[in-house]
Order: sequence, then structure tokens, then C-alpha cells
Amino acid sequence: MWLDDARRLFDPDFFSVDPADLAEYGRDWTRVHAPAPSAIALPRTTEEVSRLLRFASEREVPVVPSGGRTGLAGGAVAAKGELVLSLARMRRMDPVDLLGATVRVQAGAITEAVHAHVAPHGLLWPVDFASKGSSTVGGNVATNAGGVKVIRYGLTRGWVLGLQVVLAGGEVLELGGALEKNNTGLDLRQLFIGSEGTLGVVTEATLKLTKLPPPAAVLLFAVPDLAAVLRVFRDLRTAPITVSAYEFFTDRCLARLLAHRKLREPFPERHPYYVLVEADASPAVEEWIGALLDRGLVIDGTLAQHAKDAQDLWALREGISESLSATGLPHKNDIALPVAHLEAFCGELDAVFATRYPGWEIALFGHIGDGNLHVNVMKPDAMAKDEFLRHTKDADRAMFELVRKHRGSISAEHGIGLLKKDALAYSRSPEELAVMRAVKRALDPKGILNPGKIFDPV
Amino acid sequence: MWLDDARRLFDPDFFSVDPADLAEYGRDWTRVHAPAPSAIALPRTTEEVSRLLRFASEREVPVVPSGGRTGLAGGAVAAKGELVLSLARMRRMDPVDLLGATVRVQAGAITEAVHAHVAPHGLLWPVDFASKGSSTVGGNVATNAGGVKVIRYGLTRGWVLGLQVVLAGGEVLELGGALEKNNTGLDLRQLFIGSEGTLGVVTEATLKLTKLPPPAAVLLFAVPDLAAVLRVFRDLRTAPITVSAYEFFTDRCLARLLAHRKLREPFPERHPYYVLVEADASPAVEEWIGALLDRGLVIDGTLAQHAKDAQDLWALREGISESLSATGLPHKNDIALPVAHLEAFCGELDAVFATRYPGWEIALFGHIGDGNLHVNVMKPDAMAKDEFLRHTKDADRAMFELVRKHRGSISAEHGIGLLKKDALAYSRSPEELAVMRAVKRALDPKGILNPGKIFDPV
Repeated sequence: MWLDDARRLFDPDFFSVDPADLAEYGRDWTRVHAPAPSAIALPRTTEEVSRLLRFASEREVPVVPSGGRTGLAGGAVAAKGELVLSLARMRRMDPVDLLGATVRVQAGAITEAVHAHVAPHGLLWPVDFASKGSSTVGGNVATNAGGVKVIRYGLTRGWVLGLQVVLAGGEVLELGGALEKNNTGLDLRQLFIGSEGTLGVVTEATLKLTKLPPPAAVLLFAVPDLAAVLRVFRDLRTAPITVSAYEFFTDRCLARLLAHRKLREPFPERHPYYVLVEADASPAVEEWIGALLDRGLVIDGTLAQHAKDAQDLWALREGISESLSATGLPHKNDIALPVAHLEAFCGELDAVFATRYPGWEIALFGHIGDGNLHVNVMKPDAMAKDEFLRHTKDADRAMFELVRKHRGSISAEHGIGLLKKDALAYSRSPEELAVMRAVKRALDPKGILNPGKIFDPV
Repeated sequence: MWLDDARRLFDPDFFSVDPADLAEYGRDWTRVHAPAPSAIALPRTTEEVSRLLRFASEREVPVVPSGGRTGLAGGAVAAKGELVLSLARMRRMDPVDLLGATVRVQAGAITEAVHAHVAPHGLLWPVDFASKGSSTVGGNVATNAGGVKVIRYGLTRGWVLGLQVVLAGGEVLELGGALEKNNTGLDLRQLFIGSEGTLGVVTEATLKLTKLPPPAAVLLFAVPDLAAVLRVFRDLRTAPITVSAYEFFTDRCLARLLAHRKLREPFPERHPYYVLVEADASPAVEEWIGALLDRGLVIDGTLAQHAKDAQDLWALREGISESLSATGLPHKNDIALPVAHLEAFCGELDAVFATRYPGWEIALFGHIGDGNLHVNVMKPDAMAKDEFLRHTKDADRAMFELVRKHRGSISAEHGIGLLKKDALAYSRSPEELAVMRAVKRALDPKGILNPGKIFDPV
């Protein structure tokens, strides 16, 4: 068996076949596929990763690269006897480069640990989302992670200056480095970012940092409809305000949240839609709020007066996902639309849902400033789970048709992995898929890296 | 001949073989290779581009994609009888999408025209450099153009949400669109950005816009040495100031500039180094200048008091390149270093130059905040041009060795094209070159797209 041969090449603790490890390292935050890896490899150095992949290539052992396994698309799941290559032991962080505002870290460094490492220097790596306590830099790179601050800072892609990547055959590439500018042929670094471990294994990254922002103003508005959500947003596009987050949620989300957690009602009355805005505090922000109320663009609004207030307002938005799962069974989708199409799309989606889900509860929230909607369909209490899943599968297809019509994305930030593979063709054309496959074959001719993720081998 | 057959497929004015057109469309801003294209194709639509490339693929006609031809590396030069595919007739700009802050344009749209198109809406496409009056969106994308505002906004790569690309075989890809978030498999869009026309022809782009910045403060400092240039920069990294440009030049550059153009001396006395800073105007900027002077970090400093002043300060920096060419024969290089390595690198470079160019004049300037140096060696008056070029070729190799040692880039923003091809191996490893070639073969198996640019076919 290949594992016996492999063991001879590494230290005794390099591989684990402990059932608890197999169960733990074989899955991510999805719970659709049962974990079933054959072994877990835990290298400490890039050289070990290279040696392992060379062996895996020679013996055609399928390998699942593994970070913090907080993914929501099954990209890090090992359900078919693969070898899991975990970067968990590679967490070194170099000293912060204050002049270049960069830091080089190993791929297993935890997102939040990077934040803590650079903050004392007044610096920020602005990749920030709910799972930052477990997610790793390598995983963020492999999935091009998004989050709540994308409207200000963009995705992970923009905050990676250099990558060290090991190819399927064991070759080590040093791509870029602490360089803002480097126009020397194809930017292979960009090719690996977001490739979900199918083209190479990220072992180190040189991260671009920015200065910590000034104190934030956090606001919550109540508005009558989605059109108002977008009118306020359009106003912000050219206002002299630096916006860090523009989030929305519906009253259904708020109701579930308040049923689940002891939080204060934000306004004396309930309203159909709520908008949460975070911006750099400045006199312009207060002027802008006044103008919105004067012009009747919003029904009600509140500006957090201190840090605790701000935290409470954020809890209304960040507690939603957990509250939906705690109070029922949500069927989740993470889609993106051109912001300019959001209103038309949501109108058409309502019509689809009215037909397919008569009277069902739909909870809608998300990073509306990025055109990113989290669509949650709640299982009716009286319906069996199987029947519910059959319905949602049909409804997904109808929704994805609308996404395609409006030139949207069937996966805004979660990626494709295993869970969205069947839907990929709604966002990518046959010609694109052919190019993706050609690139995959060029970089991983034996198809050992994360096989079956994003697309099936042909 | 293939051209006769091709003519039958298109309108009569589709091809030009007018000698003036051949000379004009066959070259870029470099003057190293004599232009010698066989014909110029001037499509009006993506469908025509597709039809042309399908034909070129079938007949194996080499094609040079062509934008504003302002490149400085020979990437758009057609010196070997290629067919030039010019996007000059494809300049449509769609109405600005104010909600999404995007605009879709054809690849032939001029950079400055895009700025003028979006500015009335309070918006900016922040790709900005000296040749913006001639350069095109397609050319900017193909070369991942940089410029003077990279320190604030980054390179072109960050400001392109969607691309329409025609592959060598004529297949049309719609990559992305007006979407900030779209994690659906390999991001092929990023692969084409910066590929210098070797993988596909960009026909349309959906550009990401940002709000116009507030009024700018423009400052010029005099400092004693490079260490001081970098000390001031480090201070700015965490100061509460939004920096749009951090440029430097030496007194040699200033001397050439003042010899060539009627500009005012910026300070009562001359100093070894000058730093130009542009930042969003705010009280913090004036406080910062005071603190720099108090702490003795700078020798002298001036803050532009009105727009004309600011323009005069910028002229000191932007007039350098022209002044060097007008007053002598410069040998140019455009390199980048990790900012943290700049001081060590420049010290070692001085030593190399002292050996190779004893007593010669070196003019150094550039986007120092991005680690980007424009190194200009001036031909000594008494030396013949041939001898000069022989010397500079040797000295380039010695400089590139230092660049490699410090993990820098031999082409920061100009690209590789024809002129830097021999030096590519100083910045990219054999393994990287192998992957680049594999990707090239996967996308352009017949090698018809911009052959011989970046690297030679194998």
C-alpha cells in the first residue's frame, strides 16, 4: 500500500490515521458528505510538502489540501479515501516589514493571528469574516475569501503580494514577493488564488497590509423596501464618506434573531428592511444621516453612540446565520448580482418563490453593497426534510436561471467545491470550462490535486 | 496568399496595407525594432475579431493585438510580417452604472476618454499615467498598467471587474461582469490581465470605478539621502493621511530638467534628493509637515498653496523623462525592489556603477513608495553610441543580478515584450517559465497570438 512506502520517507508523526483525526480533517463546515480520508499528512516545511507531492504524483495518490476547513462548499472535504495534506503545523509568521507594509507567513497561519501580529504596528490585513478564528491564510488564498469589508478593501486577491506554491509534481514556485509592481509575464499567483487547491498547494504568502482605519461610525436604518436600500446606497457612492460595510437584512431575519437571542429591538416599530452601515467617523457622516431623514429616504435611523452600541448593532447582522440554523432548517445560497440588477432580480425571485414556495418563509440578508445576497429558504415545520430538499433543488435551478439572465454569480464568495459543482454551468460557459480544464491539465496532468472539486475530471 | 482570402471575408476597409499605416501600427513608443507588419486589421465588433482569429488560427497567421501602442517594452511591435489586429475602431463606452459604480467599454476606448466619461458623475477610473491621452483600456489590461497613483489604488488588475476576451481559435469568453464577487472556479480574467496579448484579445471590459478624491495637497521635500526618503515614507505608512503619490528624484534629474525647461527652482539651495507627496488635503497633512521639520527628518519643504503651484511641483517630477531624452541619450530601466531592500540595493548599485560607469551620470527617479525605480544611465558626450550600448548591456546584467539577489523585479510596470525577454530569467525561475509555456500552449496551441513576446516559442 502506498502509505507504508510513504511512511518510510518521513518522520514517525508525519502521518496520522487516528479515526478522530480522519473524521476531523476529512470535513469542512458543510455536513453533506461523510469524511473518509485514508490518512492525514502534517508537514512542517515546504520541503516536506514538495517531497510528499512528488511521491503522490508518482503513485497517483489523490491529495486534498487542507487549511482551517471553515469552507461552506465542501472544497476541503475528503470523502473518497484521499490523502489530506494539512498545513496546520506551518503557522510561522515573520516579523512585520514596516517600511513595505508586508508580512510573510506560512499558509497555516490563522487569519485572526495575522491580525493580532500586525495590529500593534498600526497595520491591518483587511481579510475579515466570521470564521477568522479558525480559517487560515492558505485557505483564504485558495478560496479568495470575501467577508464584511469587501466593499472597502476588496477580496483576498488584492491583499497577497507573493505566494510560495508547490505544484503537483513537487516543484516549488516563488511567485512575486514583497513587490507591489512586477509585470514580468503571466501572473501565475493570480491563477492559484481562488483555485480551491486544484492547481497547487500554497505553503507561504507575503501579505499586503494597510493602515488601521480611524474609529468607525456604525449606523442602522429602517427602510420600506429594497428600492430604498439601493437609493441610500447610490447616495453613498459619491458622498464624502469612507464606507467599510453596507449590509442589509429583512424583518424576517430580525424576527428569527430576536426569537433566538436576547437582543434589544433596534427601533420602536418593525420595518420591512434594515441597512447597517459602517464608515470612518467624521462630521460628514452625521450630516449625511440628517439629510437622509430630511429627504425621507429612510423611515428611521440610529447611530451607535459608543463601542457597546456599535457591537449591538453588528450583532443584529452577524447573528442572523446562526439564528436561522438554531430556530429552523435553512436551505442556503450565496449569490451575487450586478448591483444595478438587484431590484429587478429580487422582484423576479419573489415571483419564482411565490410559485415554488407558496407561503414559505424566505430570509434574505447579505453584503448588498457588493451585490451579494444570502438567500435562505426555511423548511416549513410540517414538511419532511427529504421533501424539503427536493423542493429546494428545483427552486435552486429556477433561481440560478434568473442569476444567469442577470449575469450574476451562483457563488459570490463561498466557491464551488463539491456543493455547487452541478450549478457551475449557470455562471461559466462551456468555452470557459474548456479553458479551465486545459489549465488544470497543464498544471496537474495526473489530476492528483483536489480531484472532483470545482469540476469533474473528463 | 492568406490576405487575399481574408479580404473576401470582411468589408473593403477592414484591412489596410497602406505603407503609412504599416509603419504607424507596426510600432510602439520603443524605437528598437523596425516595424514590418504584413497588414493591419481594423475590426468594428467582437464578432469580427472572432472571425478574424478563427481565420488566423486555421491559416496559422501570427497576430499582434494592438491598442494605443504607448508601450515601452515592444509588446505591440510587429517586426516580422505579422498581422496587426488594432482595436482602434472599437471605442464605444456604455452609460455609467451609478449604482454599481461600473462602466463597460470597448477595448479601444482611450484611458483619458474613460476618465472624462465618468468624472461628471463624481467617479474615477484610477488608472492614470503620462500616456493616458493615447493608451487604451485594452492595452492597459494587456500590460496591467501602473502609473503615479499605484500607491493608493494599485495596478490596473484591481480595476477590471469583467472582460470579454477572444481566444486564438475565435471563441468569445465573457469573464466576470459588473460583479465585485464571483468565486466560481479559476479566475481566467486575471490570467489575461498582464499577458501582453499572448493568450487572447481583450475586446470589452467592465471597469470598476471609485469616487473622485477630495482636493489634494501637493508637497515637495528636500532630503540629504535615500535613507531620509525612506524614513519619511515609513512615517507616512501609519500617519492619518491618505497618500495618492510618493515619488522621488535626485538632484541630477532636477539639473537636467531645469536645463531643458523654464521652471522655477523649488528651494533656495540644491539638495541631493527630493520627494514629491500628494495626499488628500486635511489639517493632519499640515501637522505632519510641521512635525517632519521639527524632527529634522527633512531639510526643507514646500506645500503647494493653489492649483498652479501644485502643477508646478508635479512638472518637476513628470518632466524628467522627457528632459533626459531632450538633453542626452539615456539608457532606461524600470525595476522594482521590496521597499525594505531599497537602501541596501541602491548602495550596492552605486558600487556596481562606480566600477562599470566611472564618472558617468546616473539619473534616478521613480515611484519610490511602490519600490519602483527608473534607472537612467546617460551616455557620456565623448562616447560613441555603439560603445555606450555595449557598456549598458553589461551593466544591465550586473544590475539584474542585484535585483535577483534582493528578490526584485526586472520590469516593474513596463512589461517584458521584446525588450526585456533576455532578462526575464532574472525575475522568473525555470519552473515558472515552464508553467507559463504550458499555459500558453493550453490557450494558444498554434502559437499565433503575439508570438515571440514575453518568451520565445519552444
